[in-house]
Amino acid sequence: MADLARLSLNQRTIDQWTLTQVVEHCGRAGVPAIGVWRDKLAEVGVDCGARLIAEAGLQVSSLCRGGFFPTTSAADRAVRADDNKRAVEEAAALRAPVLVLVCGPPVSPDLAAARRAVADGIEALLPFARDQGVRLGIEPLHPMMIGERSVIVSLREAVELAERLDDEYLGVVVDAYHVFWDPDVEALIERAGSRLVGFHASDWLTPAGDVTASRAMIGDGLIALRSMREATDRAGYRGFIEVEVINDHHRHLDGDTLLQTIIQRFQSLL
Amino acid sequence: MADLARLSLNQRTIDQWTLTQVVEHCGRAGVPAIGVWRDKLAEVGVDCGARLIAEAGLQVSSLCRGGFFPTTSAADRAVRADDNKRAVEEAAALRAPVLVLVCGPPVSPDLAAARRAVADGIEALLPFARDQGVRLGIEPLHPMMIGERSVIVSLREAVELAERLDDEYLGVVVDAYHVFWDPDVEALIERAGSRLVGFHASDWLTPAGDVTASRAMIGDGLIALRSMREATDRAGYRGFIEVEVINDHHRHLDGDTLLQTIIQRFQSLL
Repeated sequence: MADLARLSLNQRTIDQWTLTQVVEHCGRAGVPAIGVWRDKLAEVGVDCGARLIAEAGLQVSSLCRGGFFPTTSAADRAVRADDNKRAVEEAAALRAPVLVLVCGPPVSPDLAAARRAVADGIEALLPFARDQGVRLGIEPLHPMMIGERSVIVSLREAVELAERLDDEYLGVVVDAYHVFWDPDVEALIERAGSRLVGFHASDWLTPAGDVTASRAMIGDGLIALRSMREATDRAGYRGFIEVEVINDHHRHLDGDTLLQTIIQRFQSLL
Repeated sequence: MADLARLSLNQRTIDQWTLTQVVEHCGRAGVPAIGVWRDKLAEVGVDCGARLIAEAGLQVSSLCRGGFFPTTSAADRAVRADDNKRAVEEAAALRAPVLVLVCGPPVSPDLAAARRAVADGIEALLPFARDQGVRLGIEPLHPMMIGERSVIVSLREAVELAERLDDEYLGVVVDAYHVFWDPDVEALIERAGSRLVGFHASDWLTPAGDVTASRAMIGDGLIALRSMREATDRAGYRGFIEVEVINDHHRHLDGDTLLQTIIQRFQSLL
């Protein structure tokens, strides 16, 4: 049985709840941590959200998200850079150890240029992250999301980028849904070692369905989550395991029932 | 300008046409080769189809498809093995140099077992392919298709598998749509070298849309096709470039208009 002390509920998993509700329900259910999204945090305000979470005795495993580095103009790049600094500050305010980076889609078929923009953007943000005590976590997304979300679409590439920039405030977030298909996934997790700063779990449906919001409840799909979690153990990862099941249909289900399913599945599967 | 002598029309691109129509229209338009699908071939029969194509002076760049190796029972495995031999025979009848292998989805979350079944299935089929003078081409599919189509979802894995089995009758088919997202795609194409036995072109839409049938017309999407074609040149590939645009909406368009667009785009883009 996985230790409930390592469970974090990513709030997008029960998207029908406000941050206030997530805090209440997780506190009551004994879930010790949550993953927070900036748009949900903005609804209550950063200071208020941070106080709510702290008063409930909850921890924040990560804040989602910064990134979106490739741009078409210098002006746009400056706007993004400012917003990424605000994201780092918000993570610091929540005492979140990690800001998740969704690196952004390419702006043209020149994917190499987009990848350079990502590396440059991360490098420029790192000194600020260090000052604030927040690590940046590169989350490789599934290759089907390259046009909309991120040009960083394999764990290999994320690990190699983190190795190249080589900074203790830069790491990699492994979301099982995005990377499970890679035959080298467990070897790459081990290779990440101390650069592994987050582990997210959901499951992969067949048929695959909608690209953005049809992830399956852990245990309902094709992903060998236990085996992947054991690889994170071997990498030395001792942080939270965030359950992040982004699924539009789940909005119509009862949140507490979903949360109980997550707790049970987490203990038996992970 | 790309040489029209290297253009092959994969018949799924104008799916509203029968094989007979594809042969007629390609002959008239000066397209020298076609990629054939077994279900379409079966509609006219293998002998008749082979005669039609030969009499029109067309070549067949590939036959699609064999594969689907992972199974849940020995009986099922035997049925698949027989069907794969029939596919090889059909490719030989059409004088197609390559049978495209879509390797099949996993039957459980044990992806490593599925990958072993693929390797074993290919190894078992190779002597028959050699006898028939047909090369087997492993086509890695996009990782979003892992649950429905193939557990082989990266070019790296396909190349490494072909290298491991190391047989002159085994190679790799590169379909730009499936592998363009890989930062190492061009290096892997070069590494494939003489094992590169096919190159398919379509384009990647944003937003990504339906997983199976929303490929874009070449030139309409995110893929740097020219750059990828140049990598196949460096690999020493001199075979046909198959345009394979699988898109349900194209069924409602005029086939000849599509074909003219393909010819123009092929010459200016590839």
